[in-house]
Amino acid sequence: MQTQIVHESIEEYKRYNKVLEGNKSYVNKKLAQDEDYFRKLAKGQNPKYLLIGCSDSRAPPNEITETDPGEIFIHRNIANIVIPTDLNINCVIQYAIEHLKVHNIIVMGHTCCGGIKAAMKQDSVGGLLDLWLNQIKLVYEKHQELINSFTEEDDQINCLCCMNVREQVLNIWRNPIVQKSWQEGHPVMVHGWLFRVETGFIEELSLEDSIPEEMSKIFKIKFKPPKVQSPTQHEDEEGNAISPMRARRRFQRMQSRIETGIRHFTIHMQNVNEEEIEHKIVENIEQDLNV
Amino acid sequence: MQTQIVHESIEEYKRYNKVLEGNKSYVNKKLAQDEDYFRKLAKGQNPKYLLIGCSDSRAPPNEITETDPGEIFIHRNIANIVIPTDLNINCVIQYAIEHLKVHNIIVMGHTCCGGIKAAMKQDSVGGLLDLWLNQIKLVYEKHQELINSFTEEDDQINCLCCMNVREQVLNIWRNPIVQKSWQEGHPVMVHGWLFRVETGFIEELSLEDSIPEEMSKIFKIKFKPPKVQSPTQHEDEEGNAISPMRARRRFQRMQSRIETGIRHFTIHMQNVNEEEIEHKIVENIEQDLNV
Amino acid sequence: MQTQIVHESIEEYKRYNKVLEGNKSYVNKKLAQDEDYFRKLAKGQNPKYLLIGCSDSRAPPNEITETDPGEIFIHRNIANIVIPTDLNINCVIQYAIEHLKVHNIIVMGHTCCGGIKAAMKQDSVGGLLDLWLNQIKLVYEKHQELINSFTEEDDQINCLCCMNVREQVLNIWRNPIVQKSWQEGHPVMVHGWLFRVETGFIEELSLEDSIPEEMSKIFKIKFKPPKVQSPTQHEDEEGNAISPMRARRRFQRMQSRIETGIRHFTIHMQNVNEEEIEHKIVENIEQDLNV
Amino acid sequence: MQTQIVHESIEEYKRYNKVLEGNKSYVNKKLAQDEDYFRKLAKGQNPKYLLIGCSDSRAPPNEITETDPGEIFIHRNIANIVIPTDLNINCVIQYAIEHLKVHNIIVMGHTCCGGIKAAMKQDSVGGLLDLWLNQIKLVYEKHQELINSFTEEDDQINCLCCMNVREQVLNIWRNPIVQKSWQEGHPVMVHGWLFRVETGFIEELSLEDSIPEEMSKIFKIKFKPPKVQSPTQHEDEEGNAISPMRARRRFQRMQSRIETGIRHFTIHMQNVNEEEIEHKIVENIEQDLNV
Repeated sequence: MQTQIVHESIEEYKRYNKVLEGNKSYVNKKLAQDEDYFRKLAKGQNPKYLLIGCSDSRAPPNEITETDPGEIFIHRNIANIVIPTDLNINCVIQYAIEHLKVHNIIVMGHTCCGGIKAAMKQDSVGGLLDLWLNQIKLVYEKHQELINSFTEEDDQINCLCCMNVREQVLNIWRNPIVQKSWQEGHPVMVHGWLFRVETGFIEELSLEDSIPEEMSKIFKIKFKPPKVQSPTQHEDEEGNAISPMRARRRFQRMQSRIETGIRHFTIHMQNVNEEEIEHKIVENIEQDLNV
Repeated sequence: MQTQIVHESIEEYKRYNKVLEGNKSYVNKKLAQDEDYFRKLAKGQNPKYLLIGCSDSRAPPNEITETDPGEIFIHRNIANIVIPTDLNINCVIQYAIEHLKVHNIIVMGHTCCGGIKAAMKQDSVGGLLDLWLNQIKLVYEKHQELINSFTEEDDQINCLCCMNVREQVLNIWRNPIVQKSWQEGHPVMVHGWLFRVETGFIEELSLEDSIPEEMSKIFKIKFKPPKVQSPTQHEDEEGNAISPMRARRRFQRMQSRIETGIRHFTIHMQNVNEEEIEHKIVENIEQDLNV
Repeated sequence: MQTQIVHESIEEYKRYNKVLEGNKSYVNKKLAQDEDYFRKLAKGQNPKYLLIGCSDSRAPPNEITETDPGEIFIHRNIANIVIPTDLNINCVIQYAIEHLKVHNIIVMGHTCCGGIKAAMKQDSVGGLLDLWLNQIKLVYEKHQELINSFTEEDDQINCLCCMNVREQVLNIWRNPIVQKSWQEGHPVMVHGWLFRVETGFIEELSLEDSIPEEMSKIFKIKFKPPKVQSPTQHEDEEGNAISPMRARRRFQRMQSRIETGIRHFTIHMQNVNEEEIEHKIVENIEQDLNV
Repeated sequence: MQTQIVHESIEEYKRYNKVLEGNKSYVNKKLAQDEDYFRKLAKGQNPKYLLIGCSDSRAPPNEITETDPGEIFIHRNIANIVIPTDLNINCVIQYAIEHLKVHNIIVMGHTCCGGIKAAMKQDSVGGLLDLWLNQIKLVYEKHQELINSFTEEDDQINCLCCMNVREQVLNIWRNPIVQKSWQEGHPVMVHGWLFRVETGFIEELSLEDSIPEEMSKIFKIKFKPPKVQSPTQHEDEEGNAISPMRARRRFQRMQSRIETGIRHFTIHMQNVNEEEIEHKIVENIEQDLNV
């Protein structure tokens, strides 16, 4: 008797149709707001971020950040892993940096991650996945002391989710395409996020310590022929060339001052408008960096 | 003078902050609708689709189909290519089929695709991307007669976008994990979509001819040890085992009847409720398949 | 009772030891011929060939060509497949061309190949190998008419062994690193060999038709910034730049004339020494190409 | 004037021809020894070793161990790296273990390795190679203290050559295919060799410490459905099942006793024949393991 299958197939058909109907509804809503919306979109993309996330259906980057089509260039795989020799992800990184000129790469992990859970256990999850998840087992091995210091299994899992983001951020810092970009005067920052599925909130992971000096030296690659460097990024105050590493540290220092500055002035100068705040910050930083 | 950089950095900081603020806004909206929303989401995922799309920021699958977190398992790479030996995408396919038990895989290409455009030209786009895009050049070579029959460049590009989806759908049909799934009584259907960025609409590509019989024979893999097969899927009317290929054709035939049935009855029996329509369809199909 | 295992282990130990003893014997023989042999070898390698062969233990490239250490740079994998997106083999190709400056790449297949046999059957050979061998199934599908025209199974297998070499040669012709090399004035020729295990002889496959013009156009990649081209290779007789494709055809034509010339003069001018033959050939070709 | 190119091409032609002539000479020599040599070889391969070596032309495994065609299954890549997610090498490992049933995997590095040298420097060696060599930079970073303790550059390079072999051996121990093999009662040992090009000698690296217990636990994968285990390998003296890890340790202990035993008896019992020595060893080990 096939009634059961037919019923399931009808369910499936209706569900599939609902997705396509959703598309029609989406188009109508967008056109109601702006009848040129899609024509504009078709002109090209200019995303400011590359986000590397997990394939997990519960972690769609645009929804959870309320960003629009056109804002984030996205790669998603099992457990947001950045395997240094994976052509797939390296092509995404190359396209994002060299063609779309993004300055920010975000690795977004999430709690309750099935891939992370599986990597903590010893059961085989399939011939290909066993190879893939071995990358997470390496992270687990490296940070096992910290992870095992938690008594609850869920805390252990979420700790590994964090440590996994950290290690993937490191993999991006070491990446030759990223190194080359810095050297050519195009700075790229790498951020680590943890999406807490159980609350919906994104946490920025503090990874300042993730680029130890010694690592930098070994992984720093020099590319030739030396392209003309953008003067502002790679010279010091007297016009002398400085190394990409020093440029990076300077860039990070500047960013952190901007952050502090904006917070400070926003709190203490409530009657002052945005433009004035910016002016103040620029003044402050210039004094600080140039003197 | 660094004023320019400081200003750009302030812009960048504000833009980045806006993304994080977007997350807070998202959480508040969701909690306003259902204060248990995230707690439920954290319990696990049960997506019905694996969607393989392009990293392009203008083609976020959930937005353009108005689907919720939890509904679609997603992999995105440059130009939605399914390279048969790519561990990254094969792990996604293995996880989706063997762990999440999805029955539907969608390859979604889109018009105005930068990767497709680049592959049609002869300029190098970077050492890694040149290798990746050679996969599209193969599609271009195979379908060049059709593509060149268009006179406008945009039409040629969009034609290759379509043909690329078609070939990637074929790559999935040939995939051993998919073959194994059918053989173990778990049917997997593969769909090809083209997202038209300039209109916002998704088009289903008609790919019935994409599984020639000869191909099937060569790529059909037998796995052992033979698992117990689900009786309903892989037996004929008299309880004899049938091949996965025959099962697939039967499954597709049934699906197409359901589709026709629902359309037919919805148009001609407007006063009849959904339940009765389903009953009619089941009746129809059973007559058709069992006699 | 473990006696059996112990005995097997003793056998294994002795066999393993024999291999290491073989090394000592090898060193002694070499030193007897030339006591500086290894010191010279340690100075660096200057191989003239990159050979891509099968991992099969019966097809060691150096033995079967009586070539010495230092002559052939070698990559060996299952069934000598050149997967366009495989980082492993692409790194070998990049190193051979860009660092060792080899001008000749040889793809060597062999008869009785286990990988080829497995790809012609439908039984699964393991999760990873199924993916790998699907590349051969593609070759099988493309040339099935020719292959099936043989009635004996062994002939079918050996025909696929040939066709597989042919397709892998094509994959190298399409490779961006090879394209770039031609464009920079460094010609690279690709040869296809079949090692007939049952006779020990190597057959050169005639693959002149393997680079159809249309393919060339689609896969021809332009690299920038344009490096200075070597004047002799890429100019015509009047000093005008010519395309790498035209350069390639001219190079092949010249090579074929050299081959014919050497055969001709060796047969018909038996009293003439090698130097004179070379002089004759140079004269001939110059007349032919410059007038 | 093309005289120079023509001369070079003639050289190249003659060199290439010499390789093919070498093949004819090889066949004649082999047939002179045994006219059935190739017919026997064509019947199939039964290699006892998988060797993973470097593509370097100076390190041909068969020559330097005086082993015959049919004895060693071989994969060679840049700097003998075992990247855990590389499909190419994993297919070689799967074929060697699951189809050829080898019990021994050898990773053979060599001194004066161009890949290792390049990885110690900071100059880019090309887009793809930079990714590949980053794997060696990780080894360098891990062992930098030891490496930098040498003052001569050559010693530093050779130290990294050793450490690289060590880490690749570890990568094989962690490999799921190897884990599965042990679990199914098919033991696989992993050996690390360094071929000293400047002397011609192979050194066995002592890697006993390369399998720390903690690593074992995290990377130990359980496969299901549990196959029937070979009774001798995986039971203790009372017939109770033991873990693959314990089996491995027991196997290694036995191997080391065989080695000591053969050395001992060969030295002290010079009038005794091989058979008696074996009998003695078996006796010794049985006493030791069973009591």
